[in-house]
This record gives sequence, C-alpha cells and structure tokens, in this order.
Amino acid sequence: MFYTIDILGTIAFAISGVLVAFNKRMDLFGVLIIAFVTAVGGGTLRDVLIGETPVSWMRDMTYTYVILASAIFAIIFRSKINYLRTSLFLFDTIGIGLYTLVGIEKGLNAGLNPIICIALGTMTASFGGVTRDILCNEIPVIFRKEIYATACILGGVIYFVLREFPIKDDFVFVIAGLVVIITRLLAVKFKIALPNIYRGDVDTD
Amino acid sequence: MFYTIDILGTIAFAISGVLVAFNKRMDLFGVLIIAFVTAVGGGTLRDVLIGETPVSWMRDMTYTYVILASAIFAIIFRSKINYLRTSLFLFDTIGIGLYTLVGIEKGLNAGLNPIICIALGTMTASFGGVTRDILCNEIPVIFRKEIYATACILGGVIYFVLREFPIKDDFVFVIAGLVVIITRLLAVKFKIALPNIYRGDVDTD
Amino acid sequence: MFYTIDILGTIAFAISGVLVAFNKRMDLFGVLIIAFVTAVGGGTLRDVLIGETPVSWMRDMTYTYVILASAIFAIIFRSKINYLRTSLFLFDTIGIGLYTLVGIEKGLNAGLNPIICIALGTMTASFGGVTRDILCNEIPVIFRKEIYATACILGGVIYFVLREFPIKDDFVFVIAGLVVIITRLLAVKFKIALPNIYRGDVDTD
Repeated sequence: MFYTIDILGTIAFAISGVLVAFNKRMDLFGVLIIAFVTAVGGGTLRDVLIGETPVSWMRDMTYTYVILASAIFAIIFRSKINYLRTSLFLFDTIGIGLYTLVGIEKGLNAGLNPIICIALGTMTASFGGVTRDILCNEIPVIFRKEIYATACILGGVIYFVLREFPIKDDFVFVIAGLVVIITRLLAVKFKIALPNIYRGDVDTD
Repeated sequence: MFYTIDILGTIAFAISGVLVAFNKRMDLFGVLIIAFVTAVGGGTLRDVLIGETPVSWMRDMTYTYVILASAIFAIIFRSKINYLRTSLFLFDTIGIGLYTLVGIEKGLNAGLNPIICIALGTMTASFGGVTRDILCNEIPVIFRKEIYATACILGGVIYFVLREFPIKDDFVFVIAGLVVIITRLLAVKFKIALPNIYRGDVDTD
Repeated sequence: MFYTIDILGTIAFAISGVLVAFNKRMDLFGVLIIAFVTAVGGGTLRDVLIGETPVSWMRDMTYTYVILASAIFAIIFRSKINYLRTSLFLFDTIGIGLYTLVGIEKGLNAGLNPIICIALGTMTASFGGVTRDILCNEIPVIFRKEIYATACILGGVIYFVLREFPIKDDFVFVIAGLVVIITRLLAVKFKIALPNIYRGDVDTD
C-alpha cells in the first residue's frame, strides 16, 4: 500500500508540473522536465542534504517510467485535464502526506533530531513544487497562499508524539499521514490560511 | 583532443555567461560569477547527485583559470564580441556535445541505468545555462525556444545503441558527440523547434 | 568568541530574511522559511559541494533554535524593526566576515587549493542571501549593487597572504575577518561600488 500511494503521489506531482508548464507555454521538453522536477525535486534535495547518493530516483527506474507515462498522458489529454482537477488535488495531497513520512523516516535512519526529521519530511513533500515555481519564474505558491507545509509539519509533530506511546509503527505512520492529508483538505475546503502578519490581524489558525 | 574540446566548451560557456550578465547590467563581480556558474553549473549538479565530492572544479584548477581568463577577455573586448557570436555558438555547441558524453560516462562509472546516464549527460550539458538564466531572473531559454536538451538526449541514445555493436569506444564517443553537435546546428539553421503542444499543431520534429 | 560571532551572524541573516519576506507579503510559514534559508543557505551549499553530509545545521540544533527565535522576534517587533537597521547591518557584516573564514577553513580541511577555499568562503557568506533573493523572485542584490562578495574575496586573499608569515593562526583569522568587515563598512559608508563595465567608466575600486 505504501508503494502504491507513493506512486500515486508521483503521478499527481508529475501532472501538476505539466499543468504549470502549460500555463507558461513551454515546449515539449520543458513540460517533461518540469513534470520530472516537480515529482523528484523533494526527494533529491533530501538525499543530497543527508548524503545518500546517487539520489534515489537514479537508483530505482520505476519513478522515471511513471513520471514519463503521467506526463505524456497529461499532454495527450490536455483538453480534458480540467475534469481531473479534483482527483489530482486528492492525489497531490496523498502524495504530500506520504512524502512527508518518507522524509521523516529517512532522517531517523540518518540519526537526526526529530525537528530536523520534520524539516526533512516537509522539504521532501514541498521542494518539488518550489523548484517547479522557481523554474517557471513565479514566487513559490507555498510561500504565499496555501497551508501546505504547515500540514506537513503538523503531521510530523503527531508522528513523533505518537511514537512515545506503545502504538505499532505502521499505525503511527498511517495516522500521521492522515493528519497531513486531512489538515490540507480542511484548509482548502474552509479557505483556512496562515495569519496575515502584515496588518497584525489573524484570519484564523 | 578530449581535453581540448572540454576546455573550448568551458570557454564558450563562460563567455555566454558574460554576454547574458551584460544584458542585465550586472557589476564586475556579478559578471564573473555568472560566467563561472554557466561553465561549471552542469558538472557541479552531476557530481553532487552521484555523490562525487568535492565536485570536480574544486579538484582541478584548470577550469578556474580558463573561466577567469575567458571572462576577462570577454569583458575587455565587449564592444567587439558581437563579431565572435558565430564562433561562440560553435564552441558552445561543441561544449554541449562533449559535456553530454562526460556526464554519460560518469553515470556509467557509478553503475547507473542508461536512461539515467542520458539524463545525467543532459544535465551536465544544460544545467549551467539553466542556472545562469535563473540567476538573471529569466525563464530558462532551454524550456522555451531551442532544441537544446533534445540534441543531448538524441546523442545519448545513439551512444547506447552504438555500444551494442562491436565498435571501438573512442569511435562511439566521437559519433555520439557529433550527433549532438550536428542536431543542434541543423535545428538552429533550419529553425527547427519541438512541436507546439498548446494548439496541437506540430511544426516539425 | 568565534561561536558568539557565528551566532550573531546567524541572527542577523535570519532577520534580514524576515525583512525581505515582509516586503513580498509572504505568509507566516514563508517568512520563517526565508529566514532559515538566508541563515543556513551558504553553509548548506558549502557542505554539499565538499561532501560533508548530513549538512552542518542538521547535526547542530543550536542554529535551528537561534533562527526560529530571531525570526519570531523580528515578526513580533516588526513595527519597530527599522530602529534596528543599523545594528542589523553590523551583525550582518560581522556574520559575513565570520562565515567567509569558516568556509575557508573547511576548504583547507578538505585539502582544497587556496583559490577554491576563498570561493568556498565567499559562497558560505553570500549564498544564503542569493537564495533568499531567488526565492523572492529578485535578481540577487549581490550581483547588482553592493561590494559584498568582493569584501569576502579580499579577506580571503589577506588570510592566505598572512599565513605565509610567522603569525599565530588566531591572529590571522581575526585580521582577515576584520578586513572583510571593514571593507564592507567603508564601501557602504562611501558608496563605493565595483566599476561599471557597461560604459567603460570606473567609479572607483
């Protein structure tokens, strides 16, 4: 199941890259690259920072095949892709939940402090999208509008809190992942954003 | 000969960095940095991703000296540099061909899959230009207009196809490099671009 | 003393990140991330390029705590932060001096050429600010207006010149650091900039 969700997340990230690249009217190669970078960017940063090289997508070809297939699918069905936006958003959110926990567990294996592990999980989940936006010459969405990384951090905190209790590892993993996913779904549904710190007012938290 | 072409490529990349930095009216230091980043960016990314550190330009001073000399030359003769544009384009294209194959061979040495090796070669050849454009706050040219990375990928595919035949390694290397170079020259000469995927029409391929 | 200045530099870099993120009207998370990236970006690039992983801020939690505290302080007192600009500029400059020398000494430990060590020191001191500006979608200030990296390079050259004389290591360290700091202070005070290479005139050097 872990692997299935990981692949679903990869698909969603790749397609989200295609959609952004479309808006910038990039050529075929540009679209493929943006799809690839969006899907593997987070894991690449994580592996480089902890020194686990060659980075993971270079060692397991599955990611490459899945990303290419997803991007080609998105390009062929570009006129109908809008009908998929809801499913994509779900895939994307599931992928974020999964990527956060993969990052945390890689950090633990490297013997890092829990706070650093959470940062690593959040980077794994969000750096692909940040790179996508930088390559497309936008201020990364993550820094402006959405409760995105905040959901990852919250899930990471829950993960380490639950580990203090006598709960099975798999269960901790699933609960923490669901916290990331549900936080983001609720935030989007109820248009929850982080407080606007410029005028000192707090829309919500 | 290998080394000579490598140095010619480094010179061309450094000067292309100077030309772009000029257009952005950067100061002397900015121009030198952009020249340096354009010339070593691709190899740096390659070395970091496969974990070959310290990265190569830190271990061999030749690159540093060549880049500094090229950049200073370009700055001094800035009013006449336009006469050099054709030679520069040639150097640049030769450099791309060479850098692609250097990346592929480093990938093979690290035991990576041929597809990943081709990706590594393409990154080695193109990441310097991508970083240059990001630092100058442009959408990287490579994602928009030119058949640039496509030439690298084509050369990489030829490289692995030829290796299946009983052909000398040096010969495979030269042919694959020439494929990259000639593809790009022809593409620019005949204004060949990748298909425009937005309107569904295919200009050429 | 070394450690104290390092922490002061980290504080100043974190707050400078907050100030830039404010101008871009980022949300709370974006502001914290920009603060973090500005403070650790240089050291991260340095560690990745020389292969010293996991990177240093992942191994020593002090940086994380100091950055979070500084950013929260800057956010709470955002309306009064302008009174602090002079102190901030001082902290920032001291941080640059220190970071330059930390980078140089890490390069020496990795057995690198003095020129590469100086480049490494300059990157350690300046890459955080460059990343901050890229994430905020600006052409990095360092490439346009200030004698910033030039001060680092000058300090690095002095460092290696002094090492040729029978001077205590600590003393070499302090003098070279002061060269960086004083060069930058004087440059800002007297509005010294690198020569404008576009019209061929030389404002100063």
